[in-house]
Amino acid sequence: MVGASKARTENGPIRYGMVGGGQGAFIGAVHRIAGRLDGEFELVAGALSSDPERARASAAELGIDPERGYGSFEEMATAEAARADGIEAVAIVTPNHMHYPAAKVFLEAGIHVICDKPMTANLEDAKKLAALVKKSGKLFVLTHNYTGYPMVRQAREMVAAGELGDLRVVQVEYPQDWLTEKLEGTGQKQASWRTDPARSGVGGATGDIGTHAFNLARFVTGLELDSLAADLTAFVDGRPLDDNAHVMLRFKGGAKGMLWASQVAPGNENALKLRVYGTKGGLAWEQEHPNHLWFTPFGEPKRLITRNGAGAGEAAGRLSRVPPGHPEGYLEGFANIYAEAARAIRAARRAGGKPEAGVVYPTVDDGVEGVAFVEACVKSSQRDGAWTTL
Amino acid sequence: MVGASKARTENGPIRYGMVGGGQGAFIGAVHRIAGRLDGEFELVAGALSSDPERARASAAELGIDPERGYGSFEEMATAEAARADGIEAVAIVTPNHMHYPAAKVFLEAGIHVICDKPMTANLEDAKKLAALVKKSGKLFVLTHNYTGYPMVRQAREMVAAGELGDLRVVQVEYPQDWLTEKLEGTGQKQASWRTDPARSGVGGATGDIGTHAFNLARFVTGLELDSLAADLTAFVDGRPLDDNAHVMLRFKGGAKGMLWASQVAPGNENALKLRVYGTKGGLAWEQEHPNHLWFTPFGEPKRLITRNGAGAGEAAGRLSRVPPGHPEGYLEGFANIYAEAARAIRAARRAGGKPEAGVVYPTVDDGVEGVAFVEACVKSSQRDGAWTTL
Amino acid sequence: MVGASKARTENGPIRYGMVGGGQGAFIGAVHRIAGRLDGEFELVAGALSSDPERARASAAELGIDPERGYGSFEEMATAEAARADGIEAVAIVTPNHMHYPAAKVFLEAGIHVICDKPMTANLEDAKKLAALVKKSGKLFVLTHNYTGYPMVRQAREMVAAGELGDLRVVQVEYPQDWLTEKLEGTGQKQASWRTDPARSGVGGATGDIGTHAFNLARFVTGLELDSLAADLTAFVDGRPLDDNAHVMLRFKGGAKGMLWASQVAPGNENALKLRVYGTKGGLAWEQEHPNHLWFTPFGEPKRLITRNGAGAGEAAGRLSRVPPGHPEGYLEGFANIYAEAARAIRAARRAGGKPEAGVVYPTVDDGVEGVAFVEACVKSSQRDGAWTTL
Amino acid sequence: MVGASKARTENGPIRYGMVGGGQGAFIGAVHRIAGRLDGEFELVAGALSSDPERARASAAELGIDPERGYGSFEEMATAEAARADGIEAVAIVTPNHMHYPAAKVFLEAGIHVICDKPMTANLEDAKKLAALVKKSGKLFVLTHNYTGYPMVRQAREMVAAGELGDLRVVQVEYPQDWLTEKLEGTGQKQASWRTDPARSGVGGATGDIGTHAFNLARFVTGLELDSLAADLTAFVDGRPLDDNAHVMLRFKGGAKGMLWASQVAPGNENALKLRVYGTKGGLAWEQEHPNHLWFTPFGEPKRLITRNGAGAGEAAGRLSRVPPGHPEGYLEGFANIYAEAARAIRAARRAGGKPEAGVVYPTVDDGVEGVAFVEACVKSSQRDGAWTTL
Repeated sequence: MVGASKARTENGPIRYGMVGGGQGAFIGAVHRIAGRLDGEFELVAGALSSDPERARASAAELGIDPERGYGSFEEMATAEAARADGIEAVAIVTPNHMHYPAAKVFLEAGIHVICDKPMTANLEDAKKLAALVKKSGKLFVLTHNYTGYPMVRQAREMVAAGELGDLRVVQVEYPQDWLTEKLEGTGQKQASWRTDPARSGVGGATGDIGTHAFNLARFVTGLELDSLAADLTAFVDGRPLDDNAHVMLRFKGGAKGMLWASQVAPGNENALKLRVYGTKGGLAWEQEHPNHLWFTPFGEPKRLITRNGAGAGEAAGRLSRVPPGHPEGYLEGFANIYAEAARAIRAARRAGGKPEAGVVYPTVDDGVEGVAFVEACVKSSQRDGAWTTL
Repeated sequence: MVGASKARTENGPIRYGMVGGGQGAFIGAVHRIAGRLDGEFELVAGALSSDPERARASAAELGIDPERGYGSFEEMATAEAARADGIEAVAIVTPNHMHYPAAKVFLEAGIHVICDKPMTANLEDAKKLAALVKKSGKLFVLTHNYTGYPMVRQAREMVAAGELGDLRVVQVEYPQDWLTEKLEGTGQKQASWRTDPARSGVGGATGDIGTHAFNLARFVTGLELDSLAADLTAFVDGRPLDDNAHVMLRFKGGAKGMLWASQVAPGNENALKLRVYGTKGGLAWEQEHPNHLWFTPFGEPKRLITRNGAGAGEAAGRLSRVPPGHPEGYLEGFANIYAEAARAIRAARRAGGKPEAGVVYPTVDDGVEGVAFVEACVKSSQRDGAWTTL
Repeated sequence: MVGASKARTENGPIRYGMVGGGQGAFIGAVHRIAGRLDGEFELVAGALSSDPERARASAAELGIDPERGYGSFEEMATAEAARADGIEAVAIVTPNHMHYPAAKVFLEAGIHVICDKPMTANLEDAKKLAALVKKSGKLFVLTHNYTGYPMVRQAREMVAAGELGDLRVVQVEYPQDWLTEKLEGTGQKQASWRTDPARSGVGGATGDIGTHAFNLARFVTGLELDSLAADLTAFVDGRPLDDNAHVMLRFKGGAKGMLWASQVAPGNENALKLRVYGTKGGLAWEQEHPNHLWFTPFGEPKRLITRNGAGAGEAAGRLSRVPPGHPEGYLEGFANIYAEAARAIRAARRAGGKPEAGVVYPTVDDGVEGVAFVEACVKSSQRDGAWTTL
Repeated sequence: MVGASKARTENGPIRYGMVGGGQGAFIGAVHRIAGRLDGEFELVAGALSSDPERARASAAELGIDPERGYGSFEEMATAEAARADGIEAVAIVTPNHMHYPAAKVFLEAGIHVICDKPMTANLEDAKKLAALVKKSGKLFVLTHNYTGYPMVRQAREMVAAGELGDLRVVQVEYPQDWLTEKLEGTGQKQASWRTDPARSGVGGATGDIGTHAFNLARFVTGLELDSLAADLTAFVDGRPLDDNAHVMLRFKGGAKGMLWASQVAPGNENALKLRVYGTKGGLAWEQEHPNHLWFTPFGEPKRLITRNGAGAGEAAGRLSRVPPGHPEGYLEGFANIYAEAARAIRAARRAGGKPEAGVVYPTVDDGVEGVAFVEACVKSSQRDGAWTTL
C-alpha cells in the first residue's frame, strides 16, 4: 500500500485547493470539472466563500475533509503550506477584486496559482502580481480558457507557420445577451458583481468578455497591440459599467482590427468569433462551433478543418480526446488549460524543469496585458475615442 | 393592331436606355436582367461606352436598333427626347465620376434616371444632382440593390413595428477578397476603375461597398447618423484608395454601431451582413443567404423567418415571386428595385401621381448621404479617427 | 427598319406560346420569367386555361395580342402553325394529365415543346410521346429545372471526371410540408390537382417531387437504375395519392441509394438534397443553398465550392450570370433550362444543327424514365416493397 | 479521519472496475472520462485486456493499485466481490462478443454492470443476459450515449408532450467515412474487430452505428417497431460485414421511417442525425451540433432551441452543466449516462430504492432490442429486403 500511495504522489492527481466557487457560483464548478476531467487534479481544500460559514458548508457539499474546508483563504494558505500533504496549487475563482490578494498569499506560501480572468481589478495590482510571480518562482496560470480549444491552437499554429502570409485584418467579437435587461436589479449573483465597479474594476463587458476576445486575437495572431480607439456604452439605465464595447485596433507592424463585446445583443449566447486575414489566406473560428476551423487559401475553395480530422495538425491533436465528429466543448477546452498547467507543475517538480515542447497556457504577462487593455479602453472612451496605447 | 399597340404603350414595358454597361462591363448586364425579369422594362437605346465605336458595337450585340445605339450620352439624351417613341427612363451604369454629368443631361431632357451607386464621385456633385432632381420633377432611383431583397424589407418592417424595441447596437459589414492582390496591376477593368481616384472618387472599399453597408443599416433601422470615427487603410502596396475600412458609428438617439468594409479578406465573396439589436430583440441577415432572416425576441428561441414563409409579412411578400424554399437571389433583389421604379414611373405618368402604398426605393437623398458618408470616413481617417459628422 | 426587324428574327427572342399557366396558377409565371430573364424568349400566344373565357382574360392580362389569346390549345396549334410570325415553341404548364394531348398537337404542328414534369400522367402516354418526338424531329425539353442549377452541373462534371472514384452510395431527398394538413379540402388550386389521380396520375409526392429527386440523382451520377423497393403512404386522411415516399434504390453496377419524398414534413419548404459517395470522395448539394457545393476528397478537409468561385469549372461557369457571393436562385436555374432550350432551338434552325458542346437539358427520354419511376414506386409499394425494375 | 472516510463511502465516488479498454483501445478512455467528469465514479480495479500482461501494464498506467489490476475478468469478479472495499459496478468496454460472458460473471457476483453497445454479439446471448439481469436484481446500464445529450432529452420530452402531434415520419441516419478504404487490412485495431464477425456479430455498420441510430429514434419517439426492410452492403472488397445499411421502417400505429448507416461516406465523421415529423410539427437534431434542436410548429417559423437556453425544458436542463452558448459535447453526453447510472446506483443502495423522477438510461431491454434490430436487418437483407419483425 505504501508503494501505491507513493505512486499516487508522483503520477497521481495534483492536490489543489480552491478560493471562491461555493454555493451559487458558476465558474467554480467549471474549474472543478476541468481539474477532474483528465484525472490530473484532486480538490482537497477550499476557502469557497468570503462568508466563513458558507465556505465550510460548501466544502462539506463537495466532500472536502472538514478540517480542510477553511473559513478564509489566508487561513488556508497558512495551514496547507504547513501540511506534509498540503496542496500544490490553488484555483482562484472569486470576483475580480479578490484575485490579487488571494494570489499574493498563495504565491508567498510557495503554492502555484491558477487564476480566473480578468487577472485583477486594476493595472496596479496586475503589475504587482507579475512582480510577485517572478520573485516566487511559482507557476501562474490564467484561465483564458478559449485558448484551450484545439482549433484555436490549430489557428495559432497555421498563422505561425505563415499559411496566412502577412496579417492585415483581425476581426474579433464576443456578443452575449444576458444583460439586455437589468438583471442585477433582481439580485442575480453573476450579474450583480459583474456590474459593480467595486468588485469588477473599471470594465464591464470590456473586462468580462472583451478581455477574452482580445486575448484570443493576441493568442492566435501573435500580433502586439500598438493602440486602440474605444467607444464604451452602458445601455441599461443606471448600470455603472459598460455593457457594450466598440473598439478599433492598430497592431504593431500595420495590421488593423475591430473588437466588439456586448452583453445586450439579443440572440447571442456566447458568440465569441475570431477572423484573421492575411496576404495569403483567411481563417474563421466560432466558440459555439469550436470543433470547426474555416480556412481559405486565397484563390482556393474554403476548407473546413475539424478537430483531429484531416488537415488538423499537432497543436490541435495533442489537446483532443475523441475522434473528429464527436464534438468536444467548453469544458474540454477549459480542461486543456488545466492539463497544460498539470504538465507545467509536474515539470516544475523536477527542480524547475521545463514542460515538454508545445505546452502553452496564458501567463501572468497575459493577465497584465488584459487588464491594461481594459484600462486603455476606458481611457480612450473617456477621451472620446482617442487612440490609446496599453 | 393599333389597339394592341396602344395597350402595349400603357401596360407594356417601359422603354429605357442605358449609359455605360457595354463590352467588358459587369453591372450593366445586371441592370438589363433586372429590367427584363418582370417584363417591366424594354431596352431600346444605349450609349454603352465612352468610346463611340465600342458603344455602337455593344448596342448591336444587344439587338438595339442601330440608329438608337449612340456614340455619346449627350447625343442620346437629345435624340431620345425628340422621338415620339423616345425612352422614358435611362439607367446610368458607368464608373462613378460619370454619374453626375450623365444624370444631369437626362434629367434636363425630362427623362427619369435610374443610377448606380455611389451616386457621384464627390459631395459637391451629389448636392447639385439633388437640386437638379427636385427642379426637374423627374424620378431618380439609386440602385442600392440590397434594399430590394424581400427579407431586408421584412427586417425594416419589423424594426418599424417596434418588434426590436428601442435600437441600441447596429453591426454591419461587407467583406470581399477580390482585391487581396494587386488585380488592378493586371489591367482588369473592374479593379482598375475602382482603385482609381479619378474615376471612383475619394473612397475605395468605402465607396464601392461601404456605402452599400451604410445604406443597408440606414434603410433597415431608420436611424440617422450623428457621427463616425474611421480608420481606412490601403493594404496593397501602391493602391491609392482604401481597401479596408473600420468605422465606429454613433446614431442620433444614442444607438451605436460598427461598420467594416474590406476587399482584402480572403474567404469572403460578398459577405454583406447586418445585425440589429434593441431592447426587445435582435435581427440578423446575410446577403449570401438572402431568403433567411433570423429574429430573436429577447428571452425566446431564435426564429428563422423565410421569404414568403411563416412569419414573413407584407413588405417581404409583395416583392417575392416564388414560394418559400425556392431561393431568390441577387438578380431578383435588383429586379425589385426596377419593379419599384416601374411602379413609380407608371404612377408619375398620371400627372405626377403617387405610386401605391409600400413602394420604396433609394432616392437622390440616399445618394447624397452615401457620398457624404464616404467623405466623412476619409476626413475622419485623415484626422486620426476623430468623430466626424456627415 | 427591315434590317432591324430581320436581325430581331435571327438574333432576337424566340417567339413562343403557353398552354396553361393562367390566373391562379403558379408554375406558369415561373416559366414566363425563365423565358424572359435572358431575353431569349418572347411570349406572343397562349391557351392559358382549359376554360376559354379565363384563357382569354389571362392572355389579356399578360399583354398578349387578343387574337393570339386562344380558347383552346388545339386552336392555338392550328392558328400559330399557319402564321408567318407563328410561334416557334410552346411551353406546356398544365396539370400532368394534359401534357400528353397538348404536346401531341404542337409536335404534329411542327412546333418545339417545352413541357413541365412529370411528363405525362402514365407510362403509356409517355412512351407514345417519346415516339412522337422522334418522328417529329422537333425538340422536346422537360423542365426538370434543378438540373439547371450551376452547382448541379458542377457536381455532374466532377462525377464524370472521376473525382469521386467509383460511386457507391446515393442519398437523395425532397421533403416539403405544405400538404401536412388537408389543404385540398379548402379548394386551394395547387393542392387540389396534385392530390387528384385524374389530373396527376398514380403518384402524389412521388410524381410531384419524387421525380425531381430521382432525376437529379440520375443527372448528377449518370447511374442507371436497376430496381427499387418503395413504401408509399398517404398520411392525410382521405388523400387518394401518396404524400410520403420511402424508396430504396439499386443502381446498375452495384451502387445503392435511398430516396425520400414527403409533403408532410413540417419545417421543410423545398429541401431537395443530394449526396453522392464514391471510393475517392463525397459530394453534397442542397436546393435551398444552391450556390454551394460541398466536396470532400477522402482523407482531406471538406471544401466549399461556390458558383463561379475558386474550384468551380466550366460546366457551372457557363450557366452563371453574376460573381460568386451574389446568390443566384430558383428562377435563374429555371432560366438556364430555357437558355439551353434556346441554344438548341437556334441550332435546330440551321437544318437540324447541333447546339454547341456543353448544352444539356432533360429530354423526352428523361420524361419516360421519370414516369416509369413513379409507376415502379407505386407497383413496388402495392407489392409490399418488392424490388421492381423501371 | 474516520468520519471523512465514511462520508466518502456514502457521498463520495462510486468505486468501479473496467473490463477491456487497455492500451490501444478507444472507448475505454471515453468511459473513464465519463465516470470522472462529475466526480461520481472512481476507477479502482481493472481487467483491461484479454492479454493478462497487457492487462496489468494498462492498469499500472492508469494508477490502479497493482493488486487490483487483474489478468482476467473472472479473476476480478471473484476478488472484488470478496473485498470489503470491492467495486460496486463494472464497465464492460470490450469488443461485442465478450460483453455477455463478462456481464454474466459480474452480475452473478452481485456487481452492477455498465456495458457498451451493441449489447451482445447475437440475440441468444442478449436474451440470456436480460434474464440474468432480472434474476440478479442488479442494475444494467447500456451506454447508448447519444441518449445522454440534453437536446435529445429535450426532443423526447417534446414528443411525449404532444408538441409534434401524432408522429408520421422518422428519418434517422448515421454516416461515417473511416472505413471507406480497407483500414482493417493495415491491422488498425478499431477497424479489425469491427469488421470481424467473430468479435462483432453479424452486423458491421449496422451493429456499430446502426444500433445507435435505431436506439436514438426509439428513445426520442417512443414508437415501437413493427417491421423493417433492409438492404445491407459490404462495399469494400473482402469485407465480411456490411459497411452500408439502407433500412425502411414501419412503426406500430402507422408511422414510417428510414434509417441509413454507413462507414463509407466520405465527408462524414459522426454525422448522426434524427428528424421526426408529426401532424403538428417537426424536429431535427444532429450529433455534431448537439446543443441545438430545431423545432418547427407547423405553420410557424422554425425555432432554434439551445441547451439550457430559452425554450429548453427540465429534461435538458437537469443534464446541463454550463450556460447556453458554451457547447457541451460527446464526453458530457456520455458522462450523463454515467451520472444517471450513479443516481440509480445510489438509489439502489437504499434496499432497491428508485432513483428520483426523470432518471432515464438505456437498459438491458434496449440492448435486446438493439441486437434484435441487427439480426432483423441481416435477415431481411438476406431475404432481398422482405419486411421482417424484430
